[in-house]
Amino acid sequence: MNLIDGKAIAQKILSELRTEITELRARDFPPGLAVILVGEDPASQAYVRSKDRTCHELGMHSVKFELRASTSQAELLTLIHQLNQDPAIHGILVQSPPPAHIDEATVIQAIDPRKDVDGFHPVNVAKVALGDPSAFVPCTPLGCQRLLVESNVQTAGANVVILGRSMIVGKPLALLLMQKGLGGDATVTVAHSRSRDLPAICRNADILIAAIGRPEFVTADFVREGAVVIDVGINRIADATKQSGSRLVGDVAFAEVAPKCRLITPVPGGVGPMTIAMLMRNTVQACRAFHTVA
Amino acid sequence: MNLIDGKAIAQKILSELRTEITELRARDFPPGLAVILVGEDPASQAYVRSKDRTCHELGMHSVKFELRASTSQAELLTLIHQLNQDPAIHGILVQSPPPAHIDEATVIQAIDPRKDVDGFHPVNVAKVALGDPSAFVPCTPLGCQRLLVESNVQTAGANVVILGRSMIVGKPLALLLMQKGLGGDATVTVAHSRSRDLPAICRNADILIAAIGRPEFVTADFVREGAVVIDVGINRIADATKQSGSRLVGDVAFAEVAPKCRLITPVPGGVGPMTIAMLMRNTVQACRAFHTVA
Repeated sequence: MNLIDGKAIAQKILSELRTEITELRARDFPPGLAVILVGEDPASQAYVRSKDRTCHELGMHSVKFELRASTSQAELLTLIHQLNQDPAIHGILVQSPPPAHIDEATVIQAIDPRKDVDGFHPVNVAKVALGDPSAFVPCTPLGCQRLLVESNVQTAGANVVILGRSMIVGKPLALLLMQKGLGGDATVTVAHSRSRDLPAICRNADILIAAIGRPEFVTADFVREGAVVIDVGINRIADATKQSGSRLVGDVAFAEVAPKCRLITPVPGGVGPMTIAMLMRNTVQACRAFHTVA
Repeated sequence: MNLIDGKAIAQKILSELRTEITELRARDFPPGLAVILVGEDPASQAYVRSKDRTCHELGMHSVKFELRASTSQAELLTLIHQLNQDPAIHGILVQSPPPAHIDEATVIQAIDPRKDVDGFHPVNVAKVALGDPSAFVPCTPLGCQRLLVESNVQTAGANVVILGRSMIVGKPLALLLMQKGLGGDATVTVAHSRSRDLPAICRNADILIAAIGRPEFVTADFVREGAVVIDVGINRIADATKQSGSRLVGDVAFAEVAPKCRLITPVPGGVGPMTIAMLMRNTVQACRAFHTVA
């Protein structure tokens, strides 16, 4: 079968982390994550619950702040400053997107870069660009790279096409995959909605990564026979056959693309579980750095 | 003729800057640049002289520090701290590379990011990655982008291949050209020495940018008929027919590549003059920001 089982790979990583966390707890260094949600967006609530649950399963210290939508930016910044000072907290995450009256860039910059486990603070953005190994790398691109490495997909010398140029996925993933070393050394192309003849560009890819945020946008004509396809998209579309009236699909038209692929990630169960696993990994990394545990 | 005359374009930009500087001086805000050279490398001395001369031609305040090779890192940092405090200095540049006993990253981070006209400080690296318009963009990639814009080369939707993944040229240039807006919106591929079948990858390029640091590496088989070629390389090679015994060549085998191109930059006289022009532009930008002149 040509499926990359993101759930199984994430479970393997979480199980290694559990061992590491047990050791840290034994030294009285339990890793701690604070997750802040402003407002009542149901999708965001689900993400936050899932992160909190994973922390508990791993034996990590986890604090969840669910703030009303009318929370002022100043109140949010005060909370972040308190968490920056809190020695029990090693990672701080503000669930995106915040309500419109809050400036997300200001909020991100308020987080101590050493606790910025989402990897969105400028200090970490620069470290990723510069290839500094102490960087917190954003969880989704880090998860994509790890999926490739764990699936023994050779990136060195491979033609990688990334569809989408966001700061959350496309750009940091491009920087990661073009770096020297394991999971890097790729020839990386970033394509996007303004690119001419996207199908032809994508057919050049040995590894195609779809992060364009459009349901089932990547059809069979985008994919070379034998390519590896990583689907970062999570889109909810209407489906009258489902009790809920909707279902999740990726940015890839899975049914028609999968038969052409050497390997492909499903949605759900591909990149999604890896994103949470990488958040846990980053928090453990932050805890080790805080306690200067090598 | 299909030559992009970098010298003429740089002169035009410098002439616009001269007007701007005259106005700033009339308001008693003369832009000031400090250039620091440690050691006696002849090529570095030539670069520093050229920067200093251009400042004087434009009526800018210019200070040149030529320090002996044995200067300690602490001495260099002390000088930088003084210049950070100096209200007459808006841009600080330490000529690369410093001697081996000096850690370049530490030196760059000591420069006030608001005076980092080379664009190498992590604050500016992050701003470039995030597309923040207040960024100081490194001079060579900025000059390459400006050459394309001034030559009316459409980047939007074009396939750009950048040969070379350095932090000084390849990576920041990739980020610039994939950004939204004028001189951006390109489909950008970063290829390098580990890429498979470089000629075939480069033949996909509407715009090919060579920044790989190997003399005449890009031969005719790398170039599609009608492509635009930007040559960032400056390599000195032996040439017995010259009195000096050597001559400068780019990363492109100009004689065989030029006939295939719609446009091509020569070496010297292409990207080189633009790099200095962009340094002057960044210093004027720093001065305007310092005095909050819109």
